[in-house]
Amino acid sequence: MRVGVIGYGYWGPNLVRNFVESPHFEVAMVSDLDEAKRKRVKMRHPNVKTTARADELIRSTDIDLVAIATPVHTHFELAMAALKAGKHVFVEKPITTNAEEAMRLIDEADKRGAILAVDHTFLFTGAVRKLKELVAKKALGNVYYYDSVRVNLGLFQSDVSVVCDLAVHDFAITDYLFNEQPEIVSASGSSHIPGSQRNVAYITVQHASGLISHVNVNWLAPVKIRQTLIGGAEKMVVYDDMEPSEKIKIYDHGVTLSAQPQTEEEILQMRIGYRKGDVLSPKLDTREALAVELDHLADCLANNRTPINDGKLGARVVQMMEAAEKSMCSNGAPIHLKALD
Amino acid sequence: MRVGVIGYGYWGPNLVRNFVESPHFEVAMVSDLDEAKRKRVKMRHPNVKTTARADELIRSTDIDLVAIATPVHTHFELAMAALKAGKHVFVEKPITTNAEEAMRLIDEADKRGAILAVDHTFLFTGAVRKLKELVAKKALGNVYYYDSVRVNLGLFQSDVSVVCDLAVHDFAITDYLFNEQPEIVSASGSSHIPGSQRNVAYITVQHASGLISHVNVNWLAPVKIRQTLIGGAEKMVVYDDMEPSEKIKIYDHGVTLSAQPQTEEEILQMRIGYRKGDVLSPKLDTREALAVELDHLADCLANNRTPINDGKLGARVVQMMEAAEKSMCSNGAPIHLKALD
Amino acid sequence: MRVGVIGYGYWGPNLVRNFVESPHFEVAMVSDLDEAKRKRVKMRHPNVKTTARADELIRSTDIDLVAIATPVHTHFELAMAALKAGKHVFVEKPITTNAEEAMRLIDEADKRGAILAVDHTFLFTGAVRKLKELVAKKALGNVYYYDSVRVNLGLFQSDVSVVCDLAVHDFAITDYLFNEQPEIVSASGSSHIPGSQRNVAYITVQHASGLISHVNVNWLAPVKIRQTLIGGAEKMVVYDDMEPSEKIKIYDHGVTLSAQPQTEEEILQMRIGYRKGDVLSPKLDTREALAVELDHLADCLANNRTPINDGKLGARVVQMMEAAEKSMCSNGAPIHLKALD
Amino acid sequence: MRVGVIGYGYWGPNLVRNFVESPHFEVAMVSDLDEAKRKRVKMRHPNVKTTARADELIRSTDIDLVAIATPVHTHFELAMAALKAGKHVFVEKPITTNAEEAMRLIDEADKRGAILAVDHTFLFTGAVRKLKELVAKKALGNVYYYDSVRVNLGLFQSDVSVVCDLAVHDFAITDYLFNEQPEIVSASGSSHIPGSQRNVAYITVQHASGLISHVNVNWLAPVKIRQTLIGGAEKMVVYDDMEPSEKIKIYDHGVTLSAQPQTEEEILQMRIGYRKGDVLSPKLDTREALAVELDHLADCLANNRTPINDGKLGARVVQMMEAAEKSMCSNGAPIHLKALD
Repeated sequence: MRVGVIGYGYWGPNLVRNFVESPHFEVAMVSDLDEAKRKRVKMRHPNVKTTARADELIRSTDIDLVAIATPVHTHFELAMAALKAGKHVFVEKPITTNAEEAMRLIDEADKRGAILAVDHTFLFTGAVRKLKELVAKKALGNVYYYDSVRVNLGLFQSDVSVVCDLAVHDFAITDYLFNEQPEIVSASGSSHIPGSQRNVAYITVQHASGLISHVNVNWLAPVKIRQTLIGGAEKMVVYDDMEPSEKIKIYDHGVTLSAQPQTEEEILQMRIGYRKGDVLSPKLDTREALAVELDHLADCLANNRTPINDGKLGARVVQMMEAAEKSMCSNGAPIHLKALD
Repeated sequence: MRVGVIGYGYWGPNLVRNFVESPHFEVAMVSDLDEAKRKRVKMRHPNVKTTARADELIRSTDIDLVAIATPVHTHFELAMAALKAGKHVFVEKPITTNAEEAMRLIDEADKRGAILAVDHTFLFTGAVRKLKELVAKKALGNVYYYDSVRVNLGLFQSDVSVVCDLAVHDFAITDYLFNEQPEIVSASGSSHIPGSQRNVAYITVQHASGLISHVNVNWLAPVKIRQTLIGGAEKMVVYDDMEPSEKIKIYDHGVTLSAQPQTEEEILQMRIGYRKGDVLSPKLDTREALAVELDHLADCLANNRTPINDGKLGARVVQMMEAAEKSMCSNGAPIHLKALD
Repeated sequence: MRVGVIGYGYWGPNLVRNFVESPHFEVAMVSDLDEAKRKRVKMRHPNVKTTARADELIRSTDIDLVAIATPVHTHFELAMAALKAGKHVFVEKPITTNAEEAMRLIDEADKRGAILAVDHTFLFTGAVRKLKELVAKKALGNVYYYDSVRVNLGLFQSDVSVVCDLAVHDFAITDYLFNEQPEIVSASGSSHIPGSQRNVAYITVQHASGLISHVNVNWLAPVKIRQTLIGGAEKMVVYDDMEPSEKIKIYDHGVTLSAQPQTEEEILQMRIGYRKGDVLSPKLDTREALAVELDHLADCLANNRTPINDGKLGARVVQMMEAAEKSMCSNGAPIHLKALD
Repeated sequence: MRVGVIGYGYWGPNLVRNFVESPHFEVAMVSDLDEAKRKRVKMRHPNVKTTARADELIRSTDIDLVAIATPVHTHFELAMAALKAGKHVFVEKPITTNAEEAMRLIDEADKRGAILAVDHTFLFTGAVRKLKELVAKKALGNVYYYDSVRVNLGLFQSDVSVVCDLAVHDFAITDYLFNEQPEIVSASGSSHIPGSQRNVAYITVQHASGLISHVNVNWLAPVKIRQTLIGGAEKMVVYDDMEPSEKIKIYDHGVTLSAQPQTEEEILQMRIGYRKGDVLSPKLDTREALAVELDHLADCLANNRTPINDGKLGARVVQMMEAAEKSMCSNGAPIHLKALD
């Protein structure tokens, strides 16, 4: 499978390196507008062609899969061109700036039988795969909440907000883990740097099942925090991505209700018992997430399977992102979501 | 100054112990409906009178100050009766269940020249006093956000929600630290235990100055977290109340903007620099907060000063609490606040 | 069982409080040389007799068990007098200042059929009991090492060194957990405060089985650390007593050896594999250790059983303490130990 | 300055990469016995010559500086050959397996006016440079102790013990920071894996000034710990190398002595006061230590200066290592050291 990579900025080098090291892929070409970046490609990978022109890469008959690692507002146009040129597409998150464009890409890919995958790398970490395994086998019981803090100092981006940069990770993770349509999004945020988009945002998403998810993202925090609490009726999880090894802890904790109280006095005296048991930190696969993701992509390409990070997941993530931005514009007003298509 | 304490449940014993140990107060009487609790008082404090009847305590001529540590829905009636009986009042947080009742207590106290103080103990911790000192001398620069996580397993309360139990701490702290009228409250929350009030809530409060404050409270978290981030233009703070000694860290971190970009391309290339300097963990006063609070109360009583935790602060806290509950009922819809009276 | 407590200084009040709250004991008398301390007893426990004279307490026919919480150098004389007066004895750690005196107390108690127990409270914590359970069922496999850091700022004691104050905890724990006779003790230490005994010490103890234990104690450390690593062939443990809840973590980690190498070259190429599995933090009993200890003491008194913290364990602890002090005097020279009596 | 690097195993690639990226050096040749490793060099650095024969590299007239990254027992022979061939030498730590060989290298280098530097990379970390700065300006006051824990799981080495692998870091750091001749070394250790050298060791070093340093190294620990406490009369430091950003904390803590007690009773009552002040975490230079070290090496080569990590420091480190191994063979017996040469 021959790959062309558009964009060699922040994330592109990781993509190229992982494609190069994968037994399933061969990097044929890299395009970037910046000559210095093209030179860096040549230095590191002398056998890879470079070009300033993305369209040259897209039209190249040497290429089966186009990977797109450019600013978000360019994703739609480049991905659509690649699909129309008969390529499979692997595009950075978020797939597009709005859900409508995402749906058009999905339609185009479907029509052509092309694979359209979105690089939501977090889904392929050992930690999130372990969480998926736990949720899938209902180890947590009925899930009550997902509560994530994703803050640090920078990197400010000029064309997108902190929601588009950081919260989309949690939108993708909750979609993947829980497989539930969000119903209501309420978000508040703020921009503290003149000429910049919102650098802090607090987003709450409610689902029909009663699951509530909350995402706290901030580019102006003094410390880096990547901590998610997941509460279930049977067990609870702390997922701390800054921990070097014990990233996931499963708490055998919960509440137990005593027999239903009858009178008001009994209600006021209602006893909720607390159950505290062992804490388990399961061994996690430590393989680089992007390498795992490329294996999955190769498998989907070879066997014509739908990737877990397909365009539809990407579109749903964008739908939540749009809803969050819209709610922030009206100070938290609830935005009701419906299933796409 | 002779004190009568109504309620010897969860918090009452702390009150009585601190009043007893204070050189400024003498505990004359304690009332509680529960005989076992009255016996406990007698065992620990043989010289203190006990009664089952709060009204007996309130009417007693031996008492100058009535301290109220009963369930929230009883605060108004008891405090009003005490004020009308010519006593000063020190009431547990929150002062009442709604702002209207709080205002009536304030009026009554004003009319009688009585002191009306609310036991927002957190304001008297070494940590919050240090934060007040930092904010007062503008050490943080323009404050951008206050972001607090206050979660743990239990204790569920039957008559109030997690907002009334935990978020009011942050409402009091932000009121005290920043002295700004909140403008918009948006909140979402959920109840996961049948017959119980909301056990998880996410509240965002916006202020005219651009300050945004966010409070995350949860009674169903597997771990206890008490962490607040405060971001300012000059410095940033992490306040972690679970740390045994270094509860406050002041980060000399921030962003620096380069010269204003002109063209769109320049805007997209806008460089925001990150400044990272030393981190300071200042020595904090470790005296028990409640003892400090009682000293302040004694000083206000002796010199007829207004406590920092006066009825008005208490009323503003309740106003925020009411707004949060109201917003939660409509899934985050913004509630606009005006200054009380 | 009626108890007399000698000494109401630092630890005495804990003893009295726990004896008072125990259903198995009744406190008849407390002696202390200091009148202020006797008054404190009276204030807190109006029904307990007090006296300035330990001998009065020891001779009292109202008393079955004498608890001794005085400076270490007075333990021997007081305990011997109590035994000779026909009492059972519960003495603070360390039992005496030297093993010879400890043996004499053991003989006296044996002769009289009296219980002689030493207050090594740590043995009764939920954490150490869990460790004992793990070691007893050989869950760790062959135990390689026990490595403990027990440091903080103060409290300096004038009559004993940091070994006598802190390291004896680890001597008692290793004796209890592993039940092995130490063979060689090597220790180094230093005194940095004029007129004070050693405030820092590093002690290594070797056992016949290959187990090596190491204790690092320090009264001049900027932070409080209570951390013990225990390495076994099958599992490894981190016991961090400063953790509020997850004090013990059991690591399913270890090494695996490949087939035995033959030639020197093979030896140099020897591959040792690393095994990393789950980490488990077991639920621990959180009951106050001293209360558990008094239950055990009551059980031993009632049923004439030998306490796990009997005089012999106390004597072996003192033997290690003496060896450590002796080795420190000759800069780490190995001191060989033989089984007592 | 043209460099030849002998050995492209674990550390060699880091050396080559840093020499390549340095403006001061040019890598002319790399030698390794293993063809696969030579191929790796060629793949990454197509312009660098490779050879299987170290002597070819050493004799090459294209080379001014020979860097040696081979197993420890080969250092002496290779370094001596390189010096005799008129090269400067930069050799991995430890410089040799014994101090006598180290002295012969120093003599040879001195005779020829060649630079002989030992790669003690830790000396060039931002953290250790900050510590040096603090000690140099006497910010800690009289230094009482240096206490280091350096443990993790693996990597076992077949030809050297954990002392040679890990403790030498602390020997180099203490030599650099305090510039004091160690007087007495006492060490205990153990080997738990058949056919392997000691995998756990506890080493105490005493100095004339009263400074005591202690090093705890272990290849069989379940967690990675890199923590050093440094206690001084004025301030104390915790240096935790596992912390992502606040690696050094300076505690304004200490003890204060009250007026000298006179009688024995006063001595027993001696009051030592504890002083607890602010904690400062200074900003550290985060540049890669090896790059800083190569800058220093280049500066020394250009200006004929003595490197801080010269052969003499290397020899003193080896002297301590030898003393520790010797003491371990006799169970902690003190080994007295004299200044070398």
